Amino acid sequence: MNLENAIDTLRSQEETIIGVLIERAQLTTNQGAYRREQSEEGLHSSLLEQWLFQHERIEALFGRFLSPEEKSFHAPLPDPMLEVTVRPPSPELVGPENVNLSGEIRDRYLQLVPKICPNGDGQRYDLSIERDVIALKAISRRIHFGALYVAELKYREDPDTFDRAAREAAESGDRSGLERMVTRADVESELVERVRIKAGQLQEHTDGRIRRLVDPDEIAEFYEKTIVRLTKEGEILYLFNRPR
Amino acid sequence: MNLENAIDTLRSQEETIIGVLIERAQLTTNQGAYRREQSEEGLHSSLLEQWLFQHERIEALFGRFLSPEEKSFHAPLPDPMLEVTVRPPSPELVGPENVNLSGEIRDRYLQLVPKICPNGDGQRYDLSIERDVIALKAISRRIHFGALYVAELKYREDPDTFDRAAREAAESGDRSGLERMVTRADVESELVERVRIKAGQLQEHTDGRIRRLVDPDEIAEFYEKTIVRLTKEGEILYLFNRPR
Repeated sequence: MNLENAIDTLRSQEETIIGVLIERAQLTTNQGAYRREQSEEGLHSSLLEQWLFQHERIEALFGRFLSPEEKSFHAPLPDPMLEVTVRPPSPELVGPENVNLSGEIRDRYLQLVPKICPNGDGQRYDLSIERDVIALKAISRRIHFGALYVAELKYREDPDTFDRAAREAAESGDRSGLERMVTRADVESELVERVRIKAGQLQEHTDGRIRRLVDPDEIAEFYEKTIVRLTKEGEILYLFNRPR
Repeated sequence: MNLENAIDTLRSQEETIIGVLIERAQLTTNQGAYRREQSEEGLHSSLLEQWLFQHERIEALFGRFLSPEEKSFHAPLPDPMLEVTVRPPSPELVGPENVNLSGEIRDRYLQLVPKICPNGDGQRYDLSIERDVIALKAISRRIHFGALYVAELKYREDPDTFDRAAREAAESGDRSGLERMVTRADVESELVERVRIKAGQLQEHTDGRIRRLVDPDEIAEFYEKTIVRLTKEGEILYLFNRPR
């Protein structure tokens, strides 16, 4: 894999992510599924969290988390029960375990839900949770794949400069040098515009009477403020912690 | 819910199903995930079957199968662990448990996979199985929702005639009278054409260099031969077995 392939992989996931958000928007917000109930024993996990945890337990048994870009929302999880051989693509990552943005991804996704879904409590929590889980996985996979592989590939193009920037960041406590090195403002704004256009195109023939339309600006904003932003934060984390 | 709403619901699921099939087609066939291994103890379930069973066990705990159109691929499953209140939409169904086409849905879906996916074994079975499960659930939900609610709503428009046809079918062993009553050839061919057009529209701006395009004819054929066909078989089953 080179930097160009990696970026193509990220690009190919744009339709996937736009699609899962449009699917989620077909159902009401169902905020009850996200509520953490307070009882005498303490704060209980929300229904979404319980469901996600149970799913991740199974997926761990099947070896999903052996792939470095698959980051769980919950821990600890069991070891794989099957003899699973996973050959992550090259280049080999160094310290991918230092990056896990799952908590932030979940929080920001939950802030998006009321912006794209009709307000209401439709009761069929299983349907909306199913789509939440699909969406969270697709978004998390995109962010972590970018954070890990794109950062590693950039590193390999100029290891000395990245090592120096990471050392300086560690000494000064200021990571802005690293941030500048991974920022490509023109690429980012081009990406966000492309997502806005795709979100419109994917819905241009939709009959708004029977399917809810999602404002392409909401999707583009989520891409900009959450997906692009957290991918970059992940890249910085990865490069900062990459063993030297 | 009336017949018109029910048909709008089915229509709104067309984009969903086209979307999940396009997503599955981004990955290789991964036939290894569908293979049932023969050992001394007998025939083992495939990886897909094991995964799906574990997922259904969890979803049963969360009450998914309390909704009549949610039919599992596996049994037995545990009872819900939570106090779940599910209010299925009216009209109330009579004997929805008489219809379960899950086995046939799975078999036909597995026949579709090599027609739309690039041939190969990409090893990341977790990714393709995840999409298989999403697709199977979306397809099964569409078929069973149609088979149950559309049949019940048609029944309510003319119960005497349907009861008579079901009695005749039971006596003669020939269900073709019932079949004629639920068949609307013009609606079916219009539906299949609409799906073909939508499948093209949803991909018309896709960059074929980085995302695999799926032939709209394959999707339309699957809709015709599997989704429309099994929905109709389900309607006949439902009406034939509806207690009189």
